[in-house]
Amino acid sequence: MPVTPHYTDPVALILIALMLIGLSAAVGGWLVQKFGQPAVLGELLVGIVIGNLAYWLHEPIITVIREGDIVRQITLYALSHGVGLVGAAKTMLPSGPETARVLAALGSEVGPRAVGVFLFIDELSRLAVIFLLFLVGLETSVSEMRRVGHRAFSVAVVGVVCPMFLGLGTLAIVMPGMSLAHDLFIGGILTATSVGITARVFHDLGRTQSTEARIILGAAVVDDILGLLVLAVVTGLVVHGTVSFWGISEITLKAIVFLVGSIGAGLWLTPRLVPRIRRMGFRNVRLIFGLGLAFVLSWLANRIGLATIVGAFAAGLILERFFTQELEDEHSLREVLSPLESLVVPVFFVLMGLQVKLETFLNWHAIELAAILTVVAIIGKLVAGPAAGRGVSWLSVGIGMLPRGEVGLIFASIGKALGVVDDTVFSAIILMVVVTTLLTPPLLGLVMPQSDHKPPTPAPATTTATQSPD
Amino acid sequence: MPVTPHYTDPVALILIALMLIGLSAAVGGWLVQKFGQPAVLGELLVGIVIGNLAYWLHEPIITVIREGDIVRQITLYALSHGVGLVGAAKTMLPSGPETARVLAALGSEVGPRAVGVFLFIDELSRLAVIFLLFLVGLETSVSEMRRVGHRAFSVAVVGVVCPMFLGLGTLAIVMPGMSLAHDLFIGGILTATSVGITARVFHDLGRTQSTEARIILGAAVVDDILGLLVLAVVTGLVVHGTVSFWGISEITLKAIVFLVGSIGAGLWLTPRLVPRIRRMGFRNVRLIFGLGLAFVLSWLANRIGLATIVGAFAAGLILERFFTQELEDEHSLREVLSPLESLVVPVFFVLMGLQVKLETFLNWHAIELAAILTVVAIIGKLVAGPAAGRGVSWLSVGIGMLPRGEVGLIFASIGKALGVVDDTVFSAIILMVVVTTLLTPPLLGLVMPQSDHKPPTPAPATTTATQSPD
Repeated sequence: MPVTPHYTDPVALILIALMLIGLSAAVGGWLVQKFGQPAVLGELLVGIVIGNLAYWLHEPIITVIREGDIVRQITLYALSHGVGLVGAAKTMLPSGPETARVLAALGSEVGPRAVGVFLFIDELSRLAVIFLLFLVGLETSVSEMRRVGHRAFSVAVVGVVCPMFLGLGTLAIVMPGMSLAHDLFIGGILTATSVGITARVFHDLGRTQSTEARIILGAAVVDDILGLLVLAVVTGLVVHGTVSFWGISEITLKAIVFLVGSIGAGLWLTPRLVPRIRRMGFRNVRLIFGLGLAFVLSWLANRIGLATIVGAFAAGLILERFFTQELEDEHSLREVLSPLESLVVPVFFVLMGLQVKLETFLNWHAIELAAILTVVAIIGKLVAGPAAGRGVSWLSVGIGMLPRGEVGLIFASIGKALGVVDDTVFSAIILMVVVTTLLTPPLLGLVMPQSDHKPPTPAPATTTATQSPD
Repeated sequence: MPVTPHYTDPVALILIALMLIGLSAAVGGWLVQKFGQPAVLGELLVGIVIGNLAYWLHEPIITVIREGDIVRQITLYALSHGVGLVGAAKTMLPSGPETARVLAALGSEVGPRAVGVFLFIDELSRLAVIFLLFLVGLETSVSEMRRVGHRAFSVAVVGVVCPMFLGLGTLAIVMPGMSLAHDLFIGGILTATSVGITARVFHDLGRTQSTEARIILGAAVVDDILGLLVLAVVTGLVVHGTVSFWGISEITLKAIVFLVGSIGAGLWLTPRLVPRIRRMGFRNVRLIFGLGLAFVLSWLANRIGLATIVGAFAAGLILERFFTQELEDEHSLREVLSPLESLVVPVFFVLMGLQVKLETFLNWHAIELAAILTVVAIIGKLVAGPAAGRGVSWLSVGIGMLPRGEVGLIFASIGKALGVVDDTVFSAIILMVVVTTLLTPPLLGLVMPQSDHKPPTPAPATTTATQSPD
């Protein structure tokens, strides 16, 4: 047993990593907000810069971190096969100059501890996404969706169907011979719309009360649910490997049964259970019941083959109705969770940026693909604008649906973890997400001038840029 | 590369573990509060029950978790030496029937994932302690300490010196032949006083405004600093292995320079830096600056050989003055962090309970030692009561200093991680902490009757049982 020179707390490296991530996220967010961009963009960009700079400078810890999920598989293989980190990495990574650098980092003195830092940060960021989708669910109410009505629904459906089929058609031309699952996954990523970014931009423009804003927010909500269904179907297809009518039906049915069942049971049980638990004198009922339900449904969703975030979103939907309408307390659950959100959610986006390998863009194919995907992503959503009907600016609606934001990134990270999306496609998708997110604020500013008066009530707290008390 | 039956999110097991820990903590806290006991006691007890039940039922994941820090060392050894988990465990654990059960758990199919769950929960709980001590620091002001004055200081000094020397003398008789470092560590654990539990009991009795309460709270604050110094000195001694005058002087000097230097520099810099950063338009300045400072000082403290929590406490002290007195915002940092606290801090106490091995009490020596340590712990603090001077109930002051709480547990866990405290002594210490914590509320209730009126202002939020909005 080696004697350490002095007692080193196992979290010492994690402390510094978290501090640097938090600081980078704050600086990145601050910088892009100077240019009127949403903070999430800065978090991504700062991750991209640091990750590639550190790789170029041979910094071992970040070199390990930017390999992403394969590091986890290498670690599990090393622990169960007794071959050590380097041995496992040699069997699992392709040979090449990039791999040599990763092997050197893993084999260095700090290697095993770098793996420990990656595992913790990665798990924390996965919990952060679950938390984020829970919060998005908490902001999504059935009644709100009814108010925005069939217009929002039409926009959402067109905004999902068009990018999906445009994407499938384009991929059949530019990447022929790939599996249908691969094409469906990328099509699925193109269908996403980010509620957080859209809401935030309208808030900044002082136009939250406009009809366009209501339609877009409503459509984004429906889009979220459709997107989760698409994700569930596509993930299931990838895992089962074949595309059969029964496979699609089974997964769709599973997703619907899970969503309808858990939401139905949850909506029925929560108002009966929570007041009883409160009367028993339990502390922090909403906090523990809320996150507990999110965690259990996430686990259950994963257990039946869906993504964890589907369960987290369902938990949020269940609790929105009861916790915001029937429990009238001094603080909303949303408000209480806001500081936690602003601490952990950026970890996901910075880590996502860290894993963007700019060296893949040395490949002409990746740039080409990124450009094509971006054009498809923009056209697919602009086409949804006219579905909003008369009396509104269809261009505003179309542009408002553009940002893929966190939903697209979550899709992409799941695709990467599943092995459907390779490094080239992943980098192309990140670029597409960055460009669609970056384009939205200035374009919306052009077609929809800023309101003279600030909205009377504050906009609903957005997911990626919450103004919590600092 | 093994093909998984379906895509399993790496955090699926962690979600369930966190949910169970949160639920257990809530139920444990609720149960003991029914009997007027502080919630922390319930969290410990529920951990003890679950850990021993699961071990008895051969549940592999909790069997791995309850081995504690040795699992981390086994994992690092396996990753760097290429021998696998079981191979590493065989070289690092003593042979015996208990070890056979641990080897079976590590070698089972779920073994590597159980290690992953342990590492995450353990790291989270270490961050939680750093967070907790940061919050204790945030409640501790220099001016408050001046007000309670020399009385509190006398009580604190007597309450540290007496248990330490009583402990050293007793250990020389009952455990002759142990190293001085070992005896000093246990003596150090006996000197601790828990600010959180003490403050909470006075709040429950409606006596926060009494002179006794002020003296005890002031003494607990001084005691915390003295305790941290004792911990720093003892930890340094253990690591360097020898007891030399220069060694003690060096570590004491290091601790004093670190504390005085960081607090001095922090107090000077913070009011100059933070308003400037705020004016630049950064969001969440207090949250990110506060936790960032806590993380950096924790890392720095560990870097020079002190415990991480020393740095976290210093960061809290630095920010208390500026953040509560000079920045007058709608929410205090303490209030904003309260939900995060009630979510993560119980993880530490439940995990601590999980690691209490009741089978070590089958050893008569452990029970004997626990009884002796408890008597020494009680006498050592009661003797400090008269140091409070005239005009106050010395018995109330003495009893108020009894609970060792989280500070004692943190000492014990560091001692265990350092290898100074073996399983028998660790179990005896936990029992001592549980008994002193359990005795305080009923005893204080006897010697200090409940006030007729509730205090006009709410007591400062306590660390182990914060009433955050639920």
